[in-house]
Amino acid sequence: MTVGPDCPVAGAARAAFRWPVRVYYEDTDAGGVVYHANYLRFLERARSEWLRRLGHEQDLLRLEHHVLFAVTRVHMDFLKPARFNDLLEVGVTLMDLGRASLRLAQDVTRAPDALLCRAEVRLACLDDLTFRPRPIPEPLLRGFHA
Amino acid sequence: MTVGPDCPVAGAARAAFRWPVRVYYEDTDAGGVVYHANYLRFLERARSEWLRRLGHEQDLLRLEHHVLFAVTRVHMDFLKPARFNDLLEVGVTLMDLGRASLRLAQDVTRAPDALLCRAEVRLACLDDLTFRPRPIPEPLLRGFHA
Amino acid sequence: MTVGPDCPVAGAARAAFRWPVRVYYEDTDAGGVVYHANYLRFLERARSEWLRRLGHEQDLLRLEHHVLFAVTRVHMDFLKPARFNDLLEVGVTLMDLGRASLRLAQDVTRAPDALLCRAEVRLACLDDLTFRPRPIPEPLLRGFHA
Amino acid sequence: MTVGPDCPVAGAARAAFRWPVRVYYEDTDAGGVVYHANYLRFLERARSEWLRRLGHEQDLLRLEHHVLFAVTRVHMDFLKPARFNDLLEVGVTLMDLGRASLRLAQDVTRAPDALLCRAEVRLACLDDLTFRPRPIPEPLLRGFHA
Repeated sequence: MTVGPDCPVAGAARAAFRWPVRVYYEDTDAGGVVYHANYLRFLERARSEWLRRLGHEQDLLRLEHHVLFAVTRVHMDFLKPARFNDLLEVGVTLMDLGRASLRLAQDVTRAPDALLCRAEVRLACLDDLTFRPRPIPEPLLRGFHA
Repeated sequence: MTVGPDCPVAGAARAAFRWPVRVYYEDTDAGGVVYHANYLRFLERARSEWLRRLGHEQDLLRLEHHVLFAVTRVHMDFLKPARFNDLLEVGVTLMDLGRASLRLAQDVTRAPDALLCRAEVRLACLDDLTFRPRPIPEPLLRGFHA
Repeated sequence: MTVGPDCPVAGAARAAFRWPVRVYYEDTDAGGVVYHANYLRFLERARSEWLRRLGHEQDLLRLEHHVLFAVTRVHMDFLKPARFNDLLEVGVTLMDLGRASLRLAQDVTRAPDALLCRAEVRLACLDDLTFRPRPIPEPLLRGFHA
Repeated sequence: MTVGPDCPVAGAARAAFRWPVRVYYEDTDAGGVVYHANYLRFLERARSEWLRRLGHEQDLLRLEHHVLFAVTRVHMDFLKPARFNDLLEVGVTLMDLGRASLRLAQDVTRAPDALLCRAEVRLACLDDLTFRPRPIPEPLLRGFHA
Protein backbone atom coordinates (compact mmCIF):
# COMPACT_ATOMS: atom_id res chain seq x y z
CA MET A 1 0.00 0.00 0.00
CA THR A 2 1.84 3.06 -1.19
CA VAL A 3 1.88 6.19 0.89
CA GLY A 4 1.70 9.09 -1.47
CA PRO A 5 -0.65 11.00 -3.73
CA ASP A 6 -2.87 7.97 -4.16
CA CYS A 7 -2.61 6.50 -0.69
CA PRO A 8 -5.87 5.10 0.69
CA VAL A 9 -6.20 7.71 3.41
CA ALA A 10 -6.04 10.52 0.93
CA GLY A 11 -8.29 8.46 -1.32
CA ALA A 12 -10.74 8.08 1.52
CA ALA A 13 -10.99 11.80 1.95
CA ARG A 14 -12.20 12.20 -1.60
CA ALA A 15 -14.02 8.92 -2.04
CA ALA A 16 -16.74 9.67 -4.54
CA PHE A 17 -19.00 7.02 -3.10
CA ARG A 18 -19.79 6.41 0.54
CA TRP A 19 -22.25 3.95 2.08
CA PRO A 20 -23.58 3.88 5.65
CA VAL A 21 -23.24 0.72 7.73
CA ARG A 22 -24.75 0.27 11.17
CA VAL A 23 -22.94 -2.05 13.60
CA TYR A 24 -25.25 -4.72 15.03
CA TYR A 25 -24.50 -7.46 17.59
CA GLU A 26 -23.85 -9.86 14.71
CA ASP A 27 -20.81 -7.78 13.75
CA THR A 28 -19.12 -7.68 17.13
CA ASP A 29 -17.08 -10.17 19.13
CA ALA A 30 -16.34 -10.87 22.78
CA GLY A 31 -13.57 -8.26 22.66
CA GLY A 32 -16.43 -5.76 22.56
CA VAL A 33 -15.58 -4.46 19.09
CA VAL A 34 -16.32 -5.30 15.47
CA TYR A 35 -14.74 -8.64 14.56
CA HIS A 36 -11.97 -7.95 12.07
CA ALA A 37 -13.26 -10.26 9.34
CA ASN A 38 -16.53 -8.35 9.26
CA TYR A 39 -14.84 -5.26 7.83
CA LEU A 40 -14.50 -7.29 4.64
CA ARG A 41 -18.27 -7.71 4.64
CA PHE A 42 -18.73 -3.96 5.12
CA LEU A 43 -16.30 -3.23 2.29
CA GLU A 44 -18.21 -5.52 -0.03
CA ARG A 45 -21.59 -4.01 0.83
CA ALA A 46 -20.21 -0.63 -0.22
CA ARG A 47 -18.77 -2.04 -3.45
CA SER A 48 -22.13 -3.62 -4.27
CA GLU A 49 -23.95 -0.35 -3.68
CA TRP A 50 -21.33 1.56 -5.68
CA LEU A 51 -21.95 -0.74 -8.64
CA ARG A 52 -25.69 -0.28 -8.18
CA ARG A 53 -25.22 3.50 -8.16
CA LEU A 54 -23.37 3.15 -11.47
CA GLY A 55 -26.43 1.33 -12.78
CA HIS A 56 -25.24 -2.26 -12.47
CA GLU A 57 -27.07 -5.01 -10.62
CA GLN A 58 -24.68 -7.88 -9.98
CA ASP A 59 -27.34 -10.56 -10.41
CA LEU A 60 -28.09 -9.18 -13.87
CA LEU A 61 -24.37 -8.91 -14.68
CA ARG A 62 -24.15 -12.61 -13.98
CA LEU A 63 -27.28 -13.49 -15.94
CA GLU A 64 -26.50 -11.32 -18.95
CA HIS A 65 -22.71 -11.38 -19.09
CA HIS A 66 -21.94 -14.55 -17.08
CA VAL A 67 -19.36 -12.78 -14.99
CA LEU A 68 -18.83 -12.14 -11.34
CA PHE A 69 -16.20 -10.18 -9.45
CA ALA A 70 -13.92 -12.05 -7.08
CA VAL A 71 -11.58 -10.53 -4.55
CA THR A 72 -8.05 -11.61 -5.42
CA ARG A 73 -6.04 -9.45 -3.05
CA VAL A 74 -6.73 -7.47 0.09
CA HIS A 75 -4.53 -5.18 2.14
CA MET A 76 -6.16 -3.90 5.29
CA ASP A 77 -4.99 -1.71 8.14
CA PHE A 78 -7.08 -1.73 11.29
CA LEU A 79 -6.51 1.61 12.96
CA LYS A 80 -9.25 2.02 15.54
CA PRO A 81 -11.99 -0.32 16.70
CA ALA A 82 -15.65 0.11 15.81
CA ARG A 83 -18.16 -0.74 18.51
CA PHE A 84 -21.70 -2.01 18.80
CA ASN A 85 -24.28 0.46 17.55
CA ASP A 86 -21.74 2.68 15.77
CA LEU A 87 -22.90 4.22 12.53
CA LEU A 88 -20.02 3.85 10.06
CA GLU A 89 -19.39 4.93 6.53
CA VAL A 90 -17.57 2.94 3.90
CA GLY A 91 -15.83 4.64 0.99
CA VAL A 92 -15.06 3.35 -2.48
CA THR A 93 -12.51 4.95 -4.80
CA LEU A 94 -11.46 3.43 -8.09
CA MET A 95 -7.65 3.46 -8.31
CA ASP A 96 -6.81 1.32 -11.34
CA LEU A 97 -8.86 -0.22 -14.07
CA GLY A 98 -7.49 -3.11 -16.11
CA ARG A 99 -9.02 -5.19 -18.85
CA ALA A 100 -10.17 -7.92 -16.46
CA SER A 101 -9.48 -6.48 -13.05
CA LEU A 102 -9.75 -3.36 -10.97
CA ARG A 103 -8.17 -2.00 -7.85
CA LEU A 104 -10.08 0.03 -5.26
CA ALA A 105 -9.12 2.05 -2.25
CA GLN A 106 -11.64 1.63 0.51
CA ASP A 107 -11.98 2.97 4.00
CA VAL A 108 -14.27 2.72 7.00
CA THR A 109 -14.89 5.89 8.97
CA ARG A 110 -17.00 7.01 11.91
CA ALA A 111 -18.22 10.58 12.17
CA PRO A 112 -16.95 13.10 12.82
CA ASP A 113 -13.38 12.23 11.85
CA ALA A 114 -12.27 8.75 12.89
CA LEU A 115 -10.61 6.60 10.23
CA LEU A 116 -11.09 3.04 11.50
CA CYS A 117 -9.87 0.93 8.63
CA ARG A 118 -8.30 1.52 5.26
CA ALA A 119 -8.03 -1.11 2.61
CA GLU A 120 -6.90 -1.78 -0.88
CA VAL A 121 -8.92 -4.39 -2.72
CA ARG A 122 -8.13 -6.01 -6.04
CA LEU A 123 -11.02 -7.60 -7.90
CA ALA A 124 -10.92 -9.88 -10.90
CA CYS A 125 -13.70 -10.23 -13.42
CA LEU A 126 -14.31 -13.98 -13.75
CA ASP A 127 -16.47 -16.30 -15.78
CA ASP A 128 -19.14 -17.32 -13.28
CA LEU A 129 -18.77 -21.04 -14.03
CA THR A 130 -15.13 -21.65 -14.93
CA PHE A 131 -13.75 -18.88 -12.70
CA ARG A 132 -11.36 -17.97 -15.55
CA PRO A 133 -10.57 -14.26 -16.09
CA ARG A 134 -12.98 -12.49 -18.42
CA PRO A 135 -12.83 -8.96 -19.81
CA ILE A 136 -14.95 -6.53 -17.83
CA PRO A 137 -18.21 -6.10 -19.81
CA GLU A 138 -18.27 -2.96 -21.93
CA PRO A 139 -21.22 -1.25 -20.17
CA LEU A 140 -19.39 -1.55 -16.88
CA LEU A 141 -16.19 -0.14 -18.33
CA ARG A 142 -18.06 2.87 -19.64
CA GLY A 143 -19.55 3.49 -16.20
CA PHE A 144 -16.14 3.29 -14.53
CA HIS A 145 -14.71 5.81 -16.96
CA ALA A 146 -17.55 8.27 -16.57
CA MET B 1 -41.66 -28.91 21.02
CA THR B 2 -43.30 -31.65 23.00
CA VAL B 3 -42.17 -32.49 26.47
CA GLY B 4 -42.42 -36.22 26.83
CA PRO B 5 -40.78 -39.46 25.84
CA ASP B 6 -39.32 -37.93 22.72
CA CYS B 7 -38.54 -34.46 24.01
CA PRO B 8 -35.27 -33.00 22.78
CA VAL B 9 -33.64 -33.01 26.21
CA ALA B 10 -34.19 -36.69 26.63
CA GLY B 11 -33.19 -37.08 23.00
CA ALA B 12 -30.02 -35.17 23.65
CA ALA B 13 -29.06 -37.49 26.43
CA ARG B 14 -29.05 -40.43 24.08
CA ALA B 15 -28.01 -38.67 20.90
CA ALA B 16 -26.24 -41.34 18.89
CA PHE B 17 -24.03 -38.81 17.19
CA ARG B 18 -22.14 -35.97 18.83
CA TRP B 19 -19.69 -33.53 17.25
CA PRO B 20 -17.24 -31.22 19.03
CA VAL B 21 -17.29 -27.49 18.30
CA ARG B 22 -14.77 -25.01 19.68
CA VAL B 23 -15.94 -21.43 20.25
CA TYR B 24 -13.69 -18.88 18.54
CA TYR B 25 -13.90 -15.08 18.54
CA GLU B 26 -15.84 -15.23 15.28
CA ASP B 27 -18.70 -16.94 17.15
CA THR B 28 -19.08 -14.45 19.96
CA ASP B 29 -20.64 -11.00 20.24
CA ALA B 30 -20.17 -7.90 22.34
CA GLY B 31 -22.39 -9.43 25.02
CA GLY B 32 -19.40 -11.70 25.67
CA VAL B 33 -21.21 -14.89 24.65
CA VAL B 34 -21.91 -16.88 21.50
CA TYR B 35 -24.17 -14.89 19.16
CA HIS B 36 -27.50 -16.69 18.99
CA ALA B 37 -27.57 -17.12 15.21
CA ASN B 38 -24.29 -19.01 15.36
CA TYR B 39 -25.90 -21.94 17.15
CA LEU B 40 -27.62 -22.64 13.84
CA ARG B 41 -24.17 -22.88 12.25
CA PHE B 42 -23.05 -25.29 14.97
CA LEU B 43 -26.18 -27.40 14.50
CA GLU B 44 -25.52 -27.66 10.79
CA ARG B 45 -21.89 -28.64 11.21
CA ALA B 46 -23.03 -31.56 13.35
CA ARG B 47 -25.68 -32.55 10.81
CA SER B 48 -23.07 -32.49 8.03
CA GLU B 49 -20.72 -34.67 10.05
CA TRP B 50 -23.57 -37.02 10.98
CA LEU B 51 -24.35 -37.52 7.29
CA ARG B 52 -20.65 -38.07 6.62
CA ARG B 53 -20.52 -40.68 9.40
CA LEU B 54 -23.45 -42.42 7.67
CA GLY B 55 -21.32 -42.49 4.53
CA HIS B 56 -22.83 -39.55 2.67
CA GLU B 57 -20.89 -36.58 1.33
CA GLN B 58 -23.30 -33.76 0.58
CA ASP B 59 -21.37 -32.53 -2.45
CA LEU B 60 -21.68 -36.01 -3.98
CA LEU B 61 -25.36 -36.21 -3.02
CA ARG B 62 -25.85 -33.07 -5.04
CA LEU B 63 -23.76 -34.25 -7.98
CA GLU B 64 -25.22 -37.75 -8.14
CA HIS B 65 -28.78 -37.24 -6.97
CA HIS B 66 -29.25 -33.50 -7.61
CA VAL B 67 -30.67 -32.95 -4.16
CA LEU B 68 -29.81 -30.81 -1.20
CA PHE B 69 -31.32 -30.52 2.26
CA ALA B 70 -32.89 -27.24 3.27
CA VAL B 71 -33.96 -26.24 6.74
CA THR B 72 -37.68 -25.55 6.66
CA ARG B 73 -38.42 -25.18 10.36
CA VAL B 74 -36.41 -24.53 13.49
CA HIS B 75 -37.41 -24.42 17.13
CA MET B 76 -34.62 -23.41 19.46
CA ASP B 77 -34.42 -22.84 23.19
CA PHE B 78 -31.40 -20.97 24.46
CA LEU B 79 -30.88 -22.11 28.04
CA LYS B 80 -27.37 -21.02 29.03
CA PRO B 81 -24.77 -18.95 27.22
CA ALA B 82 -21.62 -20.41 25.67
CA ARG B 83 -18.49 -18.30 25.95
CA PHE B 84 -15.29 -17.70 24.04
CA ASN B 85 -12.96 -20.70 24.06
CA ASP B 86 -15.62 -23.14 25.31
CA LEU B 87 -15.45 -26.64 23.90
CA LEU B 88 -19.01 -27.65 23.05
CA GLU B 89 -20.66 -30.76 21.76
CA VAL B 90 -23.54 -30.87 19.33
CA GLY B 91 -25.91 -33.83 19.25
CA VAL B 92 -28.02 -35.17 16.41
CA THR B 93 -30.94 -37.55 16.91
CA LEU B 94 -33.28 -38.58 14.13
CA MET B 95 -36.88 -38.20 15.31
CA ASP B 96 -39.02 -38.65 12.20
CA LEU B 97 -38.28 -39.72 8.69
CA GLY B 98 -40.69 -38.89 5.88
CA ARG B 99 -40.50 -39.50 2.17
CA ALA B 100 -39.00 -36.08 1.41
CA SER B 101 -38.27 -34.66 4.83
CA LEU B 102 -36.84 -35.49 8.22
CA ARG B 103 -37.03 -34.09 11.69
CA LEU B 104 -34.08 -34.01 14.05
CA ALA B 105 -33.64 -33.26 17.73
CA GLN B 106 -30.40 -31.42 18.31
CA ASP B 107 -28.68 -30.01 21.35
CA VAL B 108 -25.57 -28.12 22.30
CA THR B 109 -23.86 -29.11 25.53
CA ARG B 110 -20.73 -28.19 27.45
CA ALA B 111 -18.99 -30.73 29.64
CA PRO B 112 -19.57 -31.88 32.24
CA ASP B 113 -23.34 -31.41 32.25
CA ALA B 114 -24.52 -28.08 30.90
CA LEU B 115 -27.28 -28.12 28.31
CA LEU B 116 -26.92 -24.78 26.50
CA CYS B 117 -29.34 -25.09 23.63
CA ARG B 118 -31.87 -27.60 22.41
CA ALA B 119 -33.42 -27.51 19.02
CA GLU B 120 -35.77 -29.26 16.73
CA VAL B 121 -34.90 -28.96 13.05
CA ARG B 122 -37.01 -29.97 10.10
CA LEU B 123 -35.21 -30.55 6.81
CA ALA B 124 -36.69 -30.97 3.35
CA CYS B 125 -35.01 -32.85 0.56
CA LEU B 126 -35.11 -30.52 -2.45
CA ASP B 127 -34.14 -30.56 -6.09
CA ASP B 128 -30.93 -28.50 -6.11
CA LEU B 129 -32.09 -26.34 -9.03
CA THR B 130 -35.85 -25.99 -8.77
CA PHE B 131 -35.97 -26.22 -4.96
CA ARG B 132 -39.02 -28.47 -5.32
CA PRO B 133 -39.42 -31.37 -2.85
CA ARG B 134 -37.74 -34.58 -3.95
CA PRO B 135 -37.84 -38.03 -2.35
CA ILE B 136 -34.85 -38.70 -0.15
CA PRO B 137 -32.45 -40.84 -2.23
CA GLU B 138 -32.66 -44.54 -1.45
CA PRO B 139 -29.09 -44.98 -0.17
CA LEU B 140 -29.67 -42.23 2.36
CA LEU B 141 -32.95 -43.76 3.51
CA ARG B 142 -31.23 -47.09 4.11
CA GLY B 143 -28.57 -45.38 6.20
CA PHE B 144 -31.17 -43.58 8.30
CA HIS B 145 -32.97 -46.85 8.98
CA ALA B 146 -29.82 -48.75 9.95
CA MET C 1 -46.49 -21.06 17.22
CA THR C 2 -50.23 -20.75 17.49
CA VAL C 3 -52.35 -20.48 14.40
CA GLY C 4 -55.13 -18.11 15.18
CA PRO C 5 -55.98 -14.46 15.61
CA ASP C 6 -52.44 -13.65 16.68
CA CYS C 7 -50.54 -15.99 14.40
CA PRO C 8 -47.32 -14.56 12.95
CA VAL C 9 -48.58 -14.49 9.39
CA ALA C 10 -51.50 -12.33 10.31
CA GLY C 11 -49.16 -10.37 12.55
CA ALA C 12 -46.79 -9.88 9.66
CA ALA C 13 -49.48 -8.33 7.56
CA ARG C 14 -50.01 -5.59 10.10
CA ALA C 15 -46.50 -5.30 11.47
CA ALA C 16 -46.20 -1.72 12.67
CA PHE C 17 -42.50 -1.63 12.03
CA ARG C 18 -40.71 -2.81 8.92
CA TRP C 19 -37.02 -2.54 8.06
CA PRO C 20 -35.36 -3.04 4.64
CA VAL C 21 -32.53 -5.54 4.28
CA ARG C 22 -30.51 -6.01 1.11
CA VAL C 23 -29.07 -9.47 0.43
CA TYR C 24 -25.30 -9.37 -0.24
CA TYR C 25 -22.93 -12.21 -1.10
CA GLU C 26 -22.07 -12.52 2.59
CA ASP C 27 -25.64 -13.66 3.27
CA THR C 28 -25.83 -16.42 0.68
CA ASP C 29 -24.50 -19.95 0.51
CA ALA C 30 -23.49 -22.40 -2.19
CA GLY C 31 -27.12 -23.46 -2.54
CA GLY C 32 -27.56 -20.06 -4.23
CA VAL C 33 -29.88 -18.71 -1.55
CA VAL C 34 -29.69 -16.93 1.79
CA TYR C 35 -28.10 -19.20 4.39
CA HIS C 36 -30.79 -20.07 6.94
CA ALA C 37 -28.88 -18.82 9.99
CA ASN C 38 -28.62 -15.38 8.46
CA TYR C 39 -32.35 -14.80 8.78
CA LEU C 40 -31.70 -14.57 12.51
CA ARG C 41 -29.27 -11.73 11.77
CA PHE C 42 -31.90 -10.00 9.64
CA LEU C 43 -34.49 -10.41 12.38
CA GLU C 44 -32.19 -8.85 14.92
CA ARG C 45 -31.33 -5.88 12.72
CA ALA C 46 -35.02 -5.10 12.50
CA ARG C 47 -35.47 -5.47 16.26
CA SER C 48 -32.55 -3.10 16.85
CA GLU C 49 -34.03 -0.54 14.49
CA TRP C 50 -37.47 -0.96 16.05
CA LEU C 51 -36.00 -0.16 19.47
CA ARG C 52 -34.20 2.83 17.97
CA ARG C 53 -37.47 4.04 16.44
CA LEU C 54 -39.00 3.82 19.92
CA GLY C 55 -36.18 6.07 21.09
CA HIS C 56 -33.91 3.47 22.67
CA GLU C 57 -30.26 2.97 21.78
CA GLN C 58 -29.13 -0.42 23.03
CA ASP C 59 -25.62 0.75 23.91
CA LEU C 60 -27.15 3.41 26.16
CA LEU C 61 -29.61 0.91 27.64
CA ARG C 62 -26.60 -1.11 28.67
CA LEU C 63 -24.64 1.85 29.99
CA GLU C 64 -27.52 3.43 31.87
CA HIS C 65 -29.59 0.43 32.94
CA HIS C 66 -27.00 -2.38 32.74
CA VAL C 67 -29.35 -4.59 30.79
CA LEU C 68 -29.27 -6.31 27.46
CA PHE C 69 -31.84 -8.39 25.61
CA ALA C 70 -31.04 -12.01 24.91
CA VAL C 71 -32.93 -14.32 22.60
CA THR C 72 -34.23 -17.23 24.68
CA ARG C 73 -36.49 -18.93 22.16
CA VAL C 74 -36.94 -18.88 18.42
CA HIS C 75 -39.47 -20.57 16.19
CA MET C 76 -38.86 -20.06 12.49
CA ASP C 77 -40.56 -21.31 9.36
CA PHE C 78 -38.65 -20.99 6.12
CA LEU C 79 -41.22 -20.75 3.37
CA LYS C 80 -39.42 -19.49 0.27
CA PRO C 81 -35.75 -18.80 -0.38
CA ALA C 82 -34.29 -15.32 -0.67
CA ARG C 83 -31.57 -14.83 -3.25
CA PHE C 84 -28.53 -12.67 -3.82
CA ASN C 85 -29.38 -9.02 -4.42
CA ASP C 86 -32.98 -9.35 -3.21
CA LEU C 87 -34.36 -6.38 -1.33
CA LEU C 88 -36.24 -7.77 1.67
CA GLU C 89 -38.31 -6.31 4.46
CA VAL C 90 -38.36 -7.49 8.02
CA GLY C 91 -41.36 -6.91 10.25
CA VAL C 92 -41.60 -6.59 14.01
CA THR C 93 -44.82 -6.94 15.96
CA LEU C 94 -44.98 -7.01 19.74
CA MET C 95 -47.14 -9.93 20.85
CA ASP C 96 -46.66 -10.22 24.59
CA LEU C 97 -44.94 -8.05 27.14
CA GLY C 98 -43.88 -9.49 30.48
CA ARG C 99 -42.03 -7.97 33.39
CA ALA C 100 -38.65 -9.24 32.20
CA SER C 101 -39.37 -10.64 28.78
CA LEU C 102 -41.21 -10.00 25.57
CA ARG C 103 -42.42 -12.03 22.64
CA LEU C 104 -42.35 -10.76 19.07
CA ALA C 105 -43.79 -11.97 15.80
CA GLN C 106 -41.39 -11.31 12.97
CA ASP C 107 -41.42 -11.98 9.28
CA VAL C 108 -39.26 -11.54 6.21
CA THR C 109 -40.97 -10.54 3.00
CA ARG C 110 -40.00 -9.65 -0.56
CA ALA C 111 -42.09 -7.29 -2.61
CA PRO C 112 -44.67 -7.51 -3.94
CA ASP C 113 -46.16 -10.31 -1.86
CA ALA C 114 -43.75 -13.11 -0.99
CA LEU C 115 -43.59 -14.20 2.63
CA LEU C 116 -40.18 -15.88 2.92
CA CYS C 117 -39.86 -16.50 6.62
CA ARG C 118 -41.99 -16.05 9.69
CA ALA C 119 -40.69 -16.24 13.18
CA GLU C 120 -41.62 -15.94 16.78
CA VAL C 121 -38.86 -14.63 19.01
CA ARG C 122 -38.80 -14.53 22.79
CA LEU C 123 -36.39 -12.09 24.40
CA ALA C 124 -35.34 -11.87 28.03
CA CYS C 125 -34.12 -8.71 29.69
CA LEU C 126 -30.89 -9.66 31.45
CA ASP C 127 -28.32 -8.05 33.68
CA ASP C 128 -25.43 -7.42 31.29
CA LEU C 129 -22.85 -8.96 33.63
CA THR C 130 -24.59 -11.74 35.56
CA PHE C 131 -27.03 -12.63 32.76
CA ARG C 132 -29.75 -12.92 35.42
CA PRO C 133 -33.28 -11.76 34.50
CA ARG C 134 -33.93 -8.09 35.19
CA PRO C 135 -37.15 -6.11 34.91
CA ILE C 136 -37.45 -4.25 31.64
CA PRO C 137 -36.47 -0.62 32.39
CA GLU C 138 -39.44 1.66 32.89
CA PRO C 139 -38.77 4.00 29.91
CA LEU C 140 -38.75 0.99 27.60
CA LEU C 141 -41.99 -0.34 29.04
CA ARG C 142 -43.67 2.99 28.43
CA GLY C 143 -42.52 2.96 24.81
CA PHE C 144 -43.84 -0.55 24.25
CA HIS C 145 -47.22 0.41 25.65
CA ALA C 146 -47.53 3.55 23.53
CA MET D 1 4.57 -9.15 1.00
CA THR D 2 8.14 -9.87 0.04
CA VAL D 3 9.01 -12.72 -2.25
CA GLY D 4 12.23 -14.19 -0.97
CA PRO D 5 13.63 -16.36 1.76
CA ASP D 6 10.77 -15.54 4.08
CA CYS D 7 7.95 -15.30 1.58
CA PRO D 8 4.66 -16.76 2.79
CA VAL D 9 4.55 -19.51 0.18
CA ALA D 10 7.91 -20.84 1.24
CA GLY D 11 6.84 -20.26 4.81
CA ALA D 12 3.67 -22.23 4.18
CA ALA D 13 5.65 -25.21 3.01
CA ARG D 14 7.44 -25.42 6.33
CA ALA D 15 4.71 -24.06 8.60
CA ALA D 16 5.37 -25.73 11.92
CA PHE D 17 1.73 -25.68 12.82
CA ARG D 18 -1.19 -26.71 10.63
CA TRP D 19 -4.87 -26.96 11.54
CA PRO D 20 -7.65 -28.69 9.58
CA VAL D 21 -10.78 -26.76 8.60
CA ARG D 22 -13.79 -28.31 6.96
CA VAL D 23 -15.87 -26.11 4.63
CA TYR D 24 -19.57 -26.10 5.57
CA TYR D 25 -22.48 -24.32 3.87
CA GLU D 26 -22.06 -21.43 6.33
CA ASP D 27 -18.67 -20.67 4.74
CA THR D 28 -19.78 -20.52 1.13
CA ASP D 29 -21.59 -17.93 -0.96
CA ALA D 30 -23.83 -17.89 -4.01
CA GLY D 31 -20.73 -17.93 -6.22
CA GLY D 32 -20.42 -21.55 -5.10
CA VAL D 33 -17.13 -21.01 -3.27
CA VAL D 34 -15.91 -19.96 0.16
CA TYR D 35 -16.78 -16.31 0.79
CA HIS D 36 -13.56 -14.34 0.91
CA ALA D 37 -14.09 -12.84 4.38
CA ASN D 38 -14.37 -16.31 5.84
CA TYR D 39 -10.71 -17.03 5.16
CA LEU D 40 -9.99 -14.55 7.93
CA ARG D 41 -12.09 -16.72 10.25
CA PHE D 42 -10.14 -19.80 9.18
CA LEU D 43 -6.83 -18.00 9.75
CA GLU D 44 -7.89 -17.03 13.24
CA ARG D 45 -9.02 -20.53 14.18
CA ALA D 46 -5.55 -21.77 13.30
CA ARG D 47 -3.89 -18.98 15.30
CA SER D 48 -6.06 -19.85 18.31
CA GLU D 49 -5.13 -23.52 18.06
CA TRP D 50 -1.46 -22.63 17.58
CA LEU D 51 -1.54 -20.64 20.81
CA ARG D 52 -3.29 -23.54 22.52
CA ARG D 53 -0.61 -25.92 21.27
CA LEU D 54 1.97 -23.60 22.79
CA GLY D 55 0.12 -23.97 26.06
CA HIS D 56 -1.85 -20.72 26.07
CA GLU D 57 -5.61 -20.45 26.42
CA GLN D 58 -6.71 -17.01 25.27
CA ASP D 59 -9.48 -16.73 27.84
CA LEU D 60 -6.91 -17.30 30.60
CA LEU D 61 -4.49 -14.85 28.97
CA ARG D 62 -7.21 -12.28 29.25
CA LEU D 63 -8.15 -13.18 32.83
CA GLU D 64 -4.59 -13.42 34.11
CA HIS D 65 -2.72 -10.88 32.01
CA HIS D 66 -5.61 -8.62 30.86
CA VAL D 67 -4.42 -8.75 27.27
CA LEU D 68 -5.89 -9.80 23.99
CA PHE D 69 -4.46 -9.95 20.50
CA ALA D 70 -5.97 -7.75 17.83
CA VAL D 71 -5.34 -7.96 14.11
CA THR D 72 -3.84 -4.65 13.00
CA ARG D 73 -2.84 -5.49 9.44
CA VAL D 74 -3.72 -8.17 6.92
CA HIS D 75 -2.37 -8.88 3.47
CA MET D 76 -4.16 -11.69 1.67
CA ASP D 77 -3.83 -13.20 -1.76
CA PHE D 78 -6.69 -15.37 -2.95
CA LEU D 79 -5.20 -17.81 -5.45
CA LYS D 80 -7.78 -20.57 -5.93
CA PRO D 81 -11.31 -21.00 -4.61
CA ALA D 82 -12.25 -23.47 -1.89
CA ARG D 83 -15.59 -25.19 -2.27
CA PHE D 84 -18.31 -26.68 -0.11
CA ASN D 85 -17.18 -29.81 1.74
CA ASP D 86 -13.47 -29.26 1.05
CA LEU D 87 -11.12 -30.27 3.81
CA LEU D 88 -8.54 -27.50 4.12
CA GLU D 89 -5.46 -26.93 6.19
CA VAL D 90 -4.36 -23.64 7.65
CA GLY D 91 -0.71 -22.97 8.44
CA VAL D 92 0.84 -20.64 10.98
CA THR D 93 4.47 -19.51 10.85
CA LEU D 94 5.92 -16.89 13.15
CA MET D 95 7.88 -14.37 11.11
CA ASP D 96 8.68 -11.51 13.48
CA LEU D 97 8.28 -11.04 17.18
CA GLY D 98 8.24 -7.57 18.69
CA ARG D 99 7.74 -6.38 22.22
CA ALA D 100 4.02 -5.79 21.78
CA SER D 101 3.29 -7.26 18.37
CA LEU D 102 3.99 -10.20 16.13
CA ARG D 103 3.81 -10.95 12.44
CA LEU D 104 2.69 -14.29 11.07
CA ALA D 105 2.73 -15.90 7.66
CA GLN D 106 -0.38 -17.95 7.13
CA ASP D 107 -1.72 -20.04 4.30
CA VAL D 108 -4.72 -22.13 3.40
CA THR D 109 -4.10 -25.30 1.43
CA ARG D 110 -6.11 -28.23 0.12
CA ALA D 111 -4.51 -31.64 -0.28
CA PRO D 112 -2.63 -32.78 -2.20
CA ASP D 113 -0.94 -29.57 -3.31
CA ALA D 114 -3.27 -26.64 -3.86
CA LEU D 115 -2.32 -23.34 -2.24
CA LEU D 116 -5.63 -21.44 -2.02
CA CYS D 117 -4.75 -18.41 0.03
CA ARG D 118 -1.63 -16.92 1.56
CA ALA D 119 -1.67 -14.18 4.11
CA GLU D 120 0.48 -12.08 6.29
CA VAL D 121 -1.13 -11.06 9.56
CA ARG D 122 0.14 -8.54 12.07
CA LEU D 123 -1.19 -8.81 15.61
CA ALA D 124 -0.88 -6.33 18.44
CA CYS D 125 -0.97 -7.26 22.09
CA LEU D 126 -3.50 -4.91 23.69
CA ASP D 127 -4.88 -4.16 27.10
CA ASP D 128 -8.29 -5.82 27.01
CA LEU D 129 -10.11 -2.74 28.34
CA THR D 130 -8.23 0.31 27.07
CA PHE D 131 -7.07 -1.34 23.81
CA ARG D 132 -3.66 0.31 24.38
CA PRO D 133 -0.54 -1.65 23.36
CA ARG D 134 0.83 -3.88 26.09
CA PRO D 135 4.01 -5.96 26.17
CA ILE D 136 3.43 -9.57 25.26
CA PRO D 137 3.30 -11.49 28.57
CA GLU D 138 6.57 -13.22 29.44
CA PRO D 139 5.24 -16.83 29.37
CA LEU D 140 3.99 -16.26 25.84
CA LEU D 141 7.31 -14.80 24.72
CA ARG D 142 9.14 -17.85 26.03
CA GLY D 143 6.81 -20.14 24.12
CA PHE D 144 7.33 -18.20 20.89
CA HIS D 145 11.08 -18.42 21.27
CA ALA D 146 11.11 -22.15 21.96
